[in-house]
Amino acid sequence: MDVYISGVGMTKFGKSKDSLETMMAQAASLALKNAHLERVDAIYLGVMNVEEFVGDSNFAALLADTLGLTGIPSTRVETASSTGAGAFEAAFYAVASGHMKNVLALAGEKMTHLPTAKTTRILSEVIDRSERRYGATMPALAAIIAQKYAREYHLPFPKLEDILAKVAIKNHSNGSLNPYAQFRKIITKEDYLKSQMVSYPLHLYDCAPITDGASAIVLTSQHTPVKVSGIGHATDTSAVRHRASLTSFNSTKEAALKAYGMAQVNPSDIQFAEVHDAFTLFEVIGTEDLGFFLPGEGWKAVEEGKTQLRGRLPINPSGGLKSRGHPVGASGLAQLVEIVFQLRGEAGGGRQLEGAEIGLAQSIGGLGNNNLVTILERSDRRRVVKEGWSLDYHPEINVSKKVSSSPPTEGVGVLEAFTMLYATQEGFRSPLTLGFVRTRSGEMVMACNPDYRSPKQLKMGKNVYLNAREGLYVFEKFTLWNRLKRRIKGPSQS
Amino acid sequence: MDVYISGVGMTKFGKSKDSLETMMAQAASLALKNAHLERVDAIYLGVMNVEEFVGDSNFAALLADTLGLTGIPSTRVETASSTGAGAFEAAFYAVASGHMKNVLALAGEKMTHLPTAKTTRILSEVIDRSERRYGATMPALAAIIAQKYAREYHLPFPKLEDILAKVAIKNHSNGSLNPYAQFRKIITKEDYLKSQMVSYPLHLYDCAPITDGASAIVLTSQHTPVKVSGIGHATDTSAVRHRASLTSFNSTKEAALKAYGMAQVNPSDIQFAEVHDAFTLFEVIGTEDLGFFLPGEGWKAVEEGKTQLRGRLPINPSGGLKSRGHPVGASGLAQLVEIVFQLRGEAGGGRQLEGAEIGLAQSIGGLGNNNLVTILERSDRRRVVKEGWSLDYHPEINVSKKVSSSPPTEGVGVLEAFTMLYATQEGFRSPLTLGFVRTRSGEMVMACNPDYRSPKQLKMGKNVYLNAREGLYVFEKFTLWNRLKRRIKGPSQS
Repeated sequence: MDVYISGVGMTKFGKSKDSLETMMAQAASLALKNAHLERVDAIYLGVMNVEEFVGDSNFAALLADTLGLTGIPSTRVETASSTGAGAFEAAFYAVASGHMKNVLALAGEKMTHLPTAKTTRILSEVIDRSERRYGATMPALAAIIAQKYAREYHLPFPKLEDILAKVAIKNHSNGSLNPYAQFRKIITKEDYLKSQMVSYPLHLYDCAPITDGASAIVLTSQHTPVKVSGIGHATDTSAVRHRASLTSFNSTKEAALKAYGMAQVNPSDIQFAEVHDAFTLFEVIGTEDLGFFLPGEGWKAVEEGKTQLRGRLPINPSGGLKSRGHPVGASGLAQLVEIVFQLRGEAGGGRQLEGAEIGLAQSIGGLGNNNLVTILERSDRRRVVKEGWSLDYHPEINVSKKVSSSPPTEGVGVLEAFTMLYATQEGFRSPLTLGFVRTRSGEMVMACNPDYRSPKQLKMGKNVYLNAREGLYVFEKFTLWNRLKRRIKGPSQS
Repeated sequence: MDVYISGVGMTKFGKSKDSLETMMAQAASLALKNAHLERVDAIYLGVMNVEEFVGDSNFAALLADTLGLTGIPSTRVETASSTGAGAFEAAFYAVASGHMKNVLALAGEKMTHLPTAKTTRILSEVIDRSERRYGATMPALAAIIAQKYAREYHLPFPKLEDILAKVAIKNHSNGSLNPYAQFRKIITKEDYLKSQMVSYPLHLYDCAPITDGASAIVLTSQHTPVKVSGIGHATDTSAVRHRASLTSFNSTKEAALKAYGMAQVNPSDIQFAEVHDAFTLFEVIGTEDLGFFLPGEGWKAVEEGKTQLRGRLPINPSGGLKSRGHPVGASGLAQLVEIVFQLRGEAGGGRQLEGAEIGLAQSIGGLGNNNLVTILERSDRRRVVKEGWSLDYHPEINVSKKVSSSPPTEGVGVLEAFTMLYATQEGFRSPLTLGFVRTRSGEMVMACNPDYRSPKQLKMGKNVYLNAREGLYVFEKFTLWNRLKRRIKGPSQS
């Protein structure tokens, strides 16, 4: 059964004094009103970590109650930071099954009331345990990926900074036109460069902010002007270091394959997209993974202005997570609200795209291991009828494999990528250097070093020496002097 | 599209040394093997509070990884203590939509590693905030409901004890025949009476234990011997005191209405059921809410042995939550595993029911506000074809209404029901008397008193005096002496 959208609503994102249930009820009421409905057949509610952020559980039932809709089935759905898209997906299948006519997907998060170090710790719980032990945060892992991307595609640091700044500037510019956005200010490259280094090479302006907000969509089996034409969802290994590639996300590519297949459209058919830019580089990688640009050419598209609001393929017309804000549970659904605004011609305020008929949203769960891709289109979109339609999207997917890590031992390895993390979470010294090191046996391990003071002290692709301390790997430069010291002292104990 | 079951699996419930993901992977592997599958199209994963019990989030992706099934979409589903049934429901709609062929519903919880007072606090987060502030725990609210039931149906305390003991004894007896059960020992009435009072009138043996465990079911669009014939799901107000009735659960009745309607069967068609006996009385109420017995007659059915393993309508042949154990996220799915065992004739060990063709599971989320009812039947079950089938289940559903509570003021009210809670959560004095008081304006409020020492000091239906202290109601007996004291001292400040 085909599934359509009859109503959307969201709160202004930002720092809010309202409780989470109040924000979510506001978004829901707007969506219901927009759909001309007072009741629905079910609620699918997305909150990522309501237990630790606000100290409640059983939130799906609480929301039905807050909305005065007790009786109605209400189910909480969670896929980490893609939760809003996950709630939409569950609602989609409920309507597609033919058992339900109108279903509310409702998503939100309340985050700004906690100290940042605590929020960082809560957010870090999505990270693979073995990497979390080293103090890895989301920005740290994103920074390691950015380093790897820069190296793989030969972007020296100032060039990388320039590209990432362009993404941030574009999204802030788009967000300045969005009344729902947390940040409505235009930023300059100077602002970007002045913003503090969160985890080298990522500045504060490379990272989506901490945000409160809620979004809602009513899905229906009745024909409306906006149709859900494709949904795909895929996972990847929890450990980032176990991924087949560090510069693309299999989970996006597999999700996109399914979504394009279901919608029977190709990447070239997509007119605009909301791409999960929790970190600026992720937008660049996203546009490659989605087949909009070739691998390693996403940054060129940014440079050439292709992804700007009036470019060939506008990316994040809403301002993205970067500027609209990132209430972790809500973002995946807020992306889809933006697509509906655009398809209905209701975006207004200078950010409306002309002739928008088909848009795509990509949402990342965790550090790229629970991603969703959703395609919406106008029901009256003219499809060019081609005999024997075929998908021309053939991404390279090298399946990642979880590796049972052996306990740390000493030895030489190659530093594949590293970051220097400044904004550490509760309980870790700042700065903290974290790296992925490939050992001589071919295993990729995580390693740390709290003694480095500047990223210039290290270089990717060089040998490092791995020491084992308290069950963790600590790495240092592989120099004759370091080796000699060790010979004199003897190997340290693991 | 019709939905069938092709595989089931579960771990032995109890105290386990295994990690949550290890237990869940075990259950999943058994179910996949049972279904002769290596992969599925999606995973719906039920965990109630993995964030606080084990300190991880993004668990859906972690499990796909643990199972070596990265790539496959994996979505976490949560509906409080009915989570396992909620995951099954989401999986059902995914298959019913026609978009997926084989889907794994997988549920678990790890609880025994934490101190009981902490576990009690975590479990209490499902309770309405305004009631939680008084120190209300799940057993306390269940005890208040038990008191109300006893009063409404004229069961003096020893009679109530006798009925509840019979439920506990029956379920332990059934559980003794279940190799997956946490408790496999038969208990006597003496054991029951000797077990400590958790919250008057509920003994320890009225309450399901704290348990580790996991369960899994593979749903499929292919015809198999077991069919999913009906699912219903409904919510109710978060605050128990706002319910239209305290002696039945609207959420069960509304869920049952939908499930019977979808399955086109009547309560009298059901041959056996797994009923959520987190507290013994909830099993009794459940059998009434499901239309097996008239309101107020469930206890008689217990007395007459109708719900025993060889009775007319066996309830909880598995041993129920009481004896199989209650890993909160897993129980709702474990109930369905038992129904499949019975329908396939695989229960064995003395607890197999003869000629089992159709069974029902009822799962309670929170304190009865997010409940599911699921009906499974053998695909070869002979349906008596009746012209113009009609549902003969017409439960009384008086919709509960959330009431915006006014701030506590002083005054006289009627004590509708109360409990004396001995096993208090972190930060509350023991014993703690908690009651529901109807004020003269008709509002039902919660009130506490930490000074009472015996439940005999109070009587339901009598007047009490409400004092306001620190934003809470404290109640005491309404005596001339108490009134006089207050006149002399003047009213206390709220």
